Amino acid sequence: MCAQYCISFADVEKAHINIRDYIHLTPVLTSSILNQVAGRNLFFKCEVFQKTGSFKIRGALNAIRGLIPATLEGKPKAVVTHSSGNHGQALTYAAKLEGIPAYIVVPHTAPNCKKLAIQAYGASIVYSEPSDESREKVTKRILEETEGIMVHPNQEPAVIAGQGTIALEVLSQVPLVDALVVPVGGGGMVAGIAITVKSKLKGELTPNPYPPETIADGVKSSIGLNTWPIIRDLVDDVFTVTEDEIKYATQLVWERMKLLIEPTAGVGVAAVLSRNFQAVSPEVKNICIVLSGGNVDLTSLSWVKHAERPAPYQSVSV
Amino acid sequence: MCAQYCISFADVEKAHINIRDYIHLTPVLTSSILNQVAGRNLFFKCEVFQKTGSFKIRGALNAIRGLIPATLEGKPKAVVTHSSGNHGQALTYAAKLEGIPAYIVVPHTAPNCKKLAIQAYGASIVYSEPSDESREKVTKRILEETEGIMVHPNQEPAVIAGQGTIALEVLSQVPLVDALVVPVGGGGMVAGIAITVKSKLKGELTPNPYPPETIADGVKSSIGLNTWPIIRDLVDDVFTVTEDEIKYATQLVWERMKLLIEPTAGVGVAAVLSRNFQAVSPEVKNICIVLSGGNVDLTSLSWVKHAERPAPYQSVSV
Repeated sequence: MCAQYCISFADVEKAHINIRDYIHLTPVLTSSILNQVAGRNLFFKCEVFQKTGSFKIRGALNAIRGLIPATLEGKPKAVVTHSSGNHGQALTYAAKLEGIPAYIVVPHTAPNCKKLAIQAYGASIVYSEPSDESREKVTKRILEETEGIMVHPNQEPAVIAGQGTIALEVLSQVPLVDALVVPVGGGGMVAGIAITVKSKLKGELTPNPYPPETIADGVKSSIGLNTWPIIRDLVDDVFTVTEDEIKYATQLVWERMKLLIEPTAGVGVAAVLSRNFQAVSPEVKNICIVLSGGNVDLTSLSWVKHAERPAPYQSVSV
Repeated sequence: MCAQYCISFADVEKAHINIRDYIHLTPVLTSSILNQVAGRNLFFKCEVFQKTGSFKIRGALNAIRGLIPATLEGKPKAVVTHSSGNHGQALTYAAKLEGIPAYIVVPHTAPNCKKLAIQAYGASIVYSEPSDESREKVTKRILEETEGIMVHPNQEPAVIAGQGTIALEVLSQVPLVDALVVPVGGGGMVAGIAITVKSKLKGELTPNPYPPETIADGVKSSIGLNTWPIIRDLVDDVFTVTEDEIKYATQLVWERMKLLIEPTAGVGVAAVLSRNFQAVSPEVKNICIVLSGGNVDLTSLSWVKHAERPAPYQSVSV
């Protein structure tokens, strides 16, 4: 598998050793009410409690601790990335541990709380338009100006290996787990996890250069060339969900589990509760959903209404 | 202590045995950011994860399992209580376990989510005005009509003993704890906890027949005759906090700990962060705050703004 993909299982094991003393071993919670609603045994891997409020610290820390010492001139002058927020916060936090300045390219449409948090962690924010093209262009300029090193939020192999450590923990915390369900944006988390749990599926990459508007801002990106081969070969199934399903699922977790997840973390919950998921074999009984993060902009909760299960799922597609 | 107060430590120990198989041993969480803000080591007892979403199930279950079998005619025809919500939900849940109908007298001003939850648990709601007088009057009528048994939300000794089990758990989970901080409404939780941890203070009861408007609806009540002697003798210190301090503390827990506590649960956090609390000896280092519940009405979050530490605490009193 090492030659075929940008990372191997050994990279995930190395990442685990690399970062485990600096992150939380996040708990796995259960909810009898959510089990009833889903008709399966759900296990929620609570990356909302992770350092910096999301799983992104795993990849960022592995990149900083793994990549940077290998540069020829020693410590780099800066680290740079573009990010809808959580990777930016995580990279800044990790860079600070090493005393390196961080520059974060952020679309100006990112939630306010994320921008503030990045600044609070001590990074310099550089704004771009919300398109992939603008992000890349601004990032390139900053890299040149700072002579920094790029840590891509989801295509950097060290980041993918770091995110894979979630699966290592889940396999030891929930030994009977039958499936892992995660939100997919650039695919860094799902690729790292898939390498770790080694499953199987085929397909072809459909790039998504202009992701649709969604409250799940963390998945507003396109699967990249590093993560795609892993996702194609090792992920068993892909579900898409509607905005209403994401909102319903997010509120259900808030109201019933009292966990303030961000809408991106509600995507996996929405998938498991969707009509299409009912076609998944009943033998897939014990399902772990990664609650990826909890960085919610509380000032923009205008979409919150009393949560009702969305009507007959007419717009769900697989 | 048994003769002096309505309950003894032995009652709390009995309650623990009575209910422990039916409730969650809720986790104690910590947050390095909250420790920084408070300048002490904080331990958060997460009753937000408790069955029915708050600590109230402890007292309700102890009352149902302890009191009811002692009635002469066996199982009563109904249980009745008045409650701003959490005790109502808890009593209904506990009554259902025993197959007893529950009638809950609720002020019509209670959060919608609590009313809906009580109905979802299967109780009949009877509305009153938000004054203590109206509550009592309506409750009396329902008791007569149903020939039911009253389970007072905070003056019933079995309820007070049940809430005391929180302290038993905290003492075993955080052996080095120096202080326990809890919100006080009728005083059921703080009395149960004080009996359990046995501290000392003096004063006199100032009844509060018309509690002020507050978003912390769970403390909109007056300390009663059963809880008062315990609070007077065994609680070390009482802090009052402003609405702004409650809002700031509640949002801080949401944003930093990702726990969707209700504003009532933010009261203890607000107290620990208040200027007056700085007068508490620095030797009181390890502080456990009971996050009492997480039943938030998401449709009424109009008070949410970007949380800023309220200005110079001018209206805080001890």
